[in-house]
Amino acid sequence: MPRTGARGGPQTRAKISEVATRMFLDSGFDAVTVTDVAREAGVSAVTVFKHFPRKEDLLLDRQDDAADLLRSAIRDRAPGTGVLPSLREVAYRVLEDRHALSGLREGSAPFFRTVAASPALIARAREIASDLQRTLADELDHDPSFTGDAALLAAFFVAGYTVVLVETARRLLDGDPPDTIAPDHRTRLDHLFTALTTGLGAQP
Amino acid sequence: MPRTGARGGPQTRAKISEVATRMFLDSGFDAVTVTDVAREAGVSAVTVFKHFPRKEDLLLDRQDDAADLLRSAIRDRAPGTGVLPSLREVAYRVLEDRHALSGLREGSAPFFRTVAASPALIARAREIASDLQRTLADELDHDPSFTGDAALLAAFFVAGYTVVLVETARRLLDGDPPDTIAPDHRTRLDHLFTALTTGLGAQP
Repeated sequence: MPRTGARGGPQTRAKISEVATRMFLDSGFDAVTVTDVAREAGVSAVTVFKHFPRKEDLLLDRQDDAADLLRSAIRDRAPGTGVLPSLREVAYRVLEDRHALSGLREGSAPFFRTVAASPALIARAREIASDLQRTLADELDHDPSFTGDAALLAAFFVAGYTVVLVETARRLLDGDPPDTIAPDHRTRLDHLFTALTTGLGAQP
Repeated sequence: MPRTGARGGPQTRAKISEVATRMFLDSGFDAVTVTDVAREAGVSAVTVFKHFPRKEDLLLDRQDDAADLLRSAIRDRAPGTGVLPSLREVAYRVLEDRHALSGLREGSAPFFRTVAASPALIARAREIASDLQRTLADELDHDPSFTGDAALLAAFFVAGYTVVLVETARRLLDGDPPDTIAPDHRTRLDHLFTALTTGLGAQP
């Protein structure tokens, strides 16, 4: 009798994702099938699909983390703290922790290289960004103390954070060490939040 | 002997796109094949693929127009005119002309309905937005009189214009008449350019 608990739990999910990520980074996204991942992880392909309905999500598995961080930045901000300062604090913390979402974790360079080589992963990354934008806009819409333009703030924030992340990825792929990139990443975050708060000014 | 001129010219391209658009709006994007389009337009499938390598581009065929408008807004702006005021003028003109890129042309409602029903078209629309963002950033990067942050301005502008367009699409699909939506579209453009220029302020 199958032990559904053992193959259905979060540990199994983490194991599958870890195995899949290593295989994709080693061999490229297109060269590895879901069946390959299942065999290597010691589970059935059905179990893989149960946890990851789309093959892309075996590698791009941080969407829920990112959504939780965004919702928490709005919901759990201290009374009197603005939305933008709270998002800025979260972005700083993500960087300080070298969280995967900063793009500066150990292994981020091969990760970005794998994504950049796969149109399917790029398309899925765009879709995730769009979903996160909606998550943030919805959270702001339901916040009684927020009176700004939820859709526009969410659009600018996600587009701007993506610019910061893409530049960090570009430098990692150029071979710059993470410890050199990190302070520039922080400077770009400062610049992003200044632009969000006070605008791009009268551009010549 | 085939008259390659006749099947290769811009008129042929326009005819194919027009026929394809009508068929997609009538029957849905997935229900119509490239072969169906070719037969209806009186050309071969090879000719269709020559003009439109991707099926999605038979419907989403305004990318070059949009890129031209963006480049022209930067290159052809009057001396002393800022980038943001110039982009704002273009956005107003697109609206006044009821250009397809305003989302307020005759036929825009079935167009948006067809796109919204097709994951392939939504994915392609995201990719086009990303390409246009790069077009604008590149143009700004090569403009000697522009001293701002090209990547951030392009990201904010494209993300913000998309928000304006999505809201216009939503109202069209709700059945609001274009003449009612147009003034609100203009107000949202004003609001977008104010946010781009002076920021989102201290959001509570």
